[in-house]
Amino acid sequence: MTKENATSQAGSDGEIASEFTLSATSAGREVRPLSHFHEWWADRHRNGNFEVTRVPFEQLDDWHFESGTGNLRHTSGRYFTVAGLRVRDGSAGTPWEQPVLNQPEIGILGILAKYFNGVLHFLMQAKMEPGNVNSLQLSPTVQATRSNYSRVHRGAHTRYLEYFREPRQGRVLVDVLQSEQGAWFLGKRNRNMVVRTDGDVPEHEDFHWLTLRQLRALLGVDHLVSMDARTVLASLPLAPPRASLARTGAAPGTSGTTAHPRPFTDALLRSYEPEHEGGGALHTRYELLSWFTERKTALDWSVDLIPLADVRNWRRDADEIADDERREFRIMAARVLAENREVSKWSQPLLAPRGEAAAVFLTRTIRGVLHVLVQAMPQPGLRDLVELGPTVYVPPGGDPAAAAAGLPFGGAATGTDPERVRFDTTLSEEGGRFFHARTRYRVVEAGPDFPVEVPATHCWMTVRQLNDLVQHGHYLNIEARSLLACVHSLW
Amino acid sequence: MTKENATSQAGSDGEIASEFTLSATSAGREVRPLSHFHEWWADRHRNGNFEVTRVPFEQLDDWHFESGTGNLRHTSGRYFTVAGLRVRDGSAGTPWEQPVLNQPEIGILGILAKYFNGVLHFLMQAKMEPGNVNSLQLSPTVQATRSNYSRVHRGAHTRYLEYFREPRQGRVLVDVLQSEQGAWFLGKRNRNMVVRTDGDVPEHEDFHWLTLRQLRALLGVDHLVSMDARTVLASLPLAPPRASLARTGAAPGTSGTTAHPRPFTDALLRSYEPEHEGGGALHTRYELLSWFTERKTALDWSVDLIPLADVRNWRRDADEIADDERREFRIMAARVLAENREVSKWSQPLLAPRGEAAAVFLTRTIRGVLHVLVQAMPQPGLRDLVELGPTVYVPPGGDPAAAAAGLPFGGAATGTDPERVRFDTTLSEEGGRFFHARTRYRVVEAGPDFPVEVPATHCWMTVRQLNDLVQHGHYLNIEARSLLACVHSLW
Repeated sequence: MTKENATSQAGSDGEIASEFTLSATSAGREVRPLSHFHEWWADRHRNGNFEVTRVPFEQLDDWHFESGTGNLRHTSGRYFTVAGLRVRDGSAGTPWEQPVLNQPEIGILGILAKYFNGVLHFLMQAKMEPGNVNSLQLSPTVQATRSNYSRVHRGAHTRYLEYFREPRQGRVLVDVLQSEQGAWFLGKRNRNMVVRTDGDVPEHEDFHWLTLRQLRALLGVDHLVSMDARTVLASLPLAPPRASLARTGAAPGTSGTTAHPRPFTDALLRSYEPEHEGGGALHTRYELLSWFTERKTALDWSVDLIPLADVRNWRRDADEIADDERREFRIMAARVLAENREVSKWSQPLLAPRGEAAAVFLTRTIRGVLHVLVQAMPQPGLRDLVELGPTVYVPPGGDPAAAAAGLPFGGAATGTDPERVRFDTTLSEEGGRFFHARTRYRVVEAGPDFPVEVPATHCWMTVRQLNDLVQHGHYLNIEARSLLACVHSLW
Repeated sequence: MTKENATSQAGSDGEIASEFTLSATSAGREVRPLSHFHEWWADRHRNGNFEVTRVPFEQLDDWHFESGTGNLRHTSGRYFTVAGLRVRDGSAGTPWEQPVLNQPEIGILGILAKYFNGVLHFLMQAKMEPGNVNSLQLSPTVQATRSNYSRVHRGAHTRYLEYFREPRQGRVLVDVLQSEQGAWFLGKRNRNMVVRTDGDVPEHEDFHWLTLRQLRALLGVDHLVSMDARTVLASLPLAPPRASLARTGAAPGTSGTTAHPRPFTDALLRSYEPEHEGGGALHTRYELLSWFTERKTALDWSVDLIPLADVRNWRRDADEIADDERREFRIMAARVLAENREVSKWSQPLLAPRGEAAAVFLTRTIRGVLHVLVQAMPQPGLRDLVELGPTVYVPPGGDPAAAAAGLPFGGAATGTDPERVRFDTTLSEEGGRFFHARTRYRVVEAGPDFPVEVPATHCWMTVRQLNDLVQHGHYLNIEARSLLACVHSLW
């Protein structure tokens, strides 16, 4: 109770900061070891019965190609529709066209949090998705489209949903609508939520409480922490543990990059400090917002939804919809058997990219403070068309290294010096819509010679500045949010 | 120069705060009196030669109805297109359909600012728009669509544009993409900018430097300050003048509503204080954002662009496009002669509402701090579908008082007690697209008995909270931004 009171006094802003401080000093407290997680995880795999089988489109239940448009739709008119997109660039000639997943409804991605022995824990789910490379991934407590939670499928009730719908018990720590893949979805938004409860919460066998420190460690395991978990974790309003900051000693700029034994970590911790407390950001918030507005204004795209049947240079056969050159993604159909889901059998379309994507945040210490190099990245399915993305993003298809080499900062981003590669893990994109969509996420520290001056497409920001922006929608795209979660895992 | 240095030291956040302080104590400084403005304004009217004539659609130059869709388009494919909109509410049956102005390109609304004798001035333009009830309105320094400033019309150069395009001289105080009428535009965004320069700026005869204090006074004049000027002024990062706050004496909650001689002004000034400085807001920022996310999630609309020819219950004749019941707006055509514009003659379609709209902010002092009651308002043309709007908004058409009576808080909003009606002026919506679109803007102080508990559609916010949100897009809709500018004029 003392802990609870302390937390309440800290207010919303301080809440997660307290947790950090606690977890940094909680060595003596009773926290279940990670081995307990691994046993549970292996057990979930043994107990699960999952089958995903590709089928021709005509074997889809409840899905059909609409006459006239050729759009692939669910009979209920809900879930999502595969339609076409036409993108015209005002300054160029030929528009580009592609299939797109049109899913106007808003889903909930919610993580339930609770203090145990003074340490904040998050209730994570072992969730099967048909597109996962490995069936199960560690997912938010609740992950439900409106069609799911309003039970269009007439399946079982979504577990723990009551914490995320009004009237709800518990305190909201995060609640923001965020975009998803702007290359594949049209205007998709999901509600990213973290709710803390003080009540008793039964731990169902498919769920497991983990601390933030444990989740950070697990983020380094290939294909374990799901995209939906990453985007929610990235949105936590984090502040640096005071104790750690105190240990780093002197003011920003005077230590850190020189004699100090852990310069990267120190610079990273300082990067969580707010501007007005001397965070030492290269750019003020006003400069960042103006730069971003300029990038959005510079883009002269107009984007129209068109019938799937009208999309040029793409073809549908019995099994898939693909581009003539076989370089882009495919739309295919699958039949799914999953015993622990709300509905245990269903069929659905999936979008299958060809090969692996690469997403890299380059970092550099400037005036003793770690800065992340973000890119203003246009994608046709984003409601504002431009959001902040990785320093370097290589879409799937083709050789990532070769493709990166042709992009700004591609050379630095593919660096392999183990002293500078701070994070390097291959993680999955949403397995509920995408089949085997994999991205290699890397955080790479640039050398001291790396230029502070960058082209207008890019901008240096502190972690705190990214953290402040991610409290709002329309700022960080899904790949940047995944990378931000990775950055959070580095101390 | 001393002044300039002081301002620079204050940093971006403090910039406008300094101006406030200065203007509150600048009685002895040389500022041109408002009579000078009025002479100039009368002179502009005398010198202007404006003619707006309604014509049948077939007399439009460079505009035509596209075969097939029936959309009304410019030959260049730019400016805007009149198309159709279909809005489906997931929980209801029949979709609603209407014409819509589709203008994907981003325009610039920019005000140039400069210190004269230590007082910040804004360069305002006497600008004619064909839909204005009175030809000229006081407008931003620059008001230009991309088609304008990239000179699709092959007209004259837009004056002062160089301050608002890269590489620019001067310092950016405001730079944010904001929505416009979500009932009439599809996804329209304009770039709201304020740039401060230290250089010499010639005052062209159609332009006039005014202080913020003068602009505030002019906001109370019917149809004088244009919508575009209001939205930019609303976005200024304002802070209360320290001197005024000091005069109000005791801590929030202990004075203000009781013995103090100017309780409304005191409560208003406190409403500009940031939360962490004891602003005493009813809700934390986290609670506000979560409430807003809930409102967006609760809405189950899907919105599709459709051909104008397919819009049900609307008809086109030689002169206008109108709904069968003659209750909504009309699309009509006009021929324009205007000697002081980039192009002196042109023709264009205009959207003409029937009658006047009403927009009201109800305010109430809570714990000594003025709060504004905002509404989460769905409009189909907004990219996020929901933004924050007035407490009460009555669209044009029909009797505003009768319509208000049927809405939540409609009774309080139509109050006429002169002690409580703090602002009451009829202002115009954008005359470049709308013909005689008028809104009666009111700020009404609710009585002490007015409930603090409100339905889920509404939420109390301090002026500071609104100010913080308006630094980002997708929060305050255009009517709320107009009202925020009105609130700024009240001290």
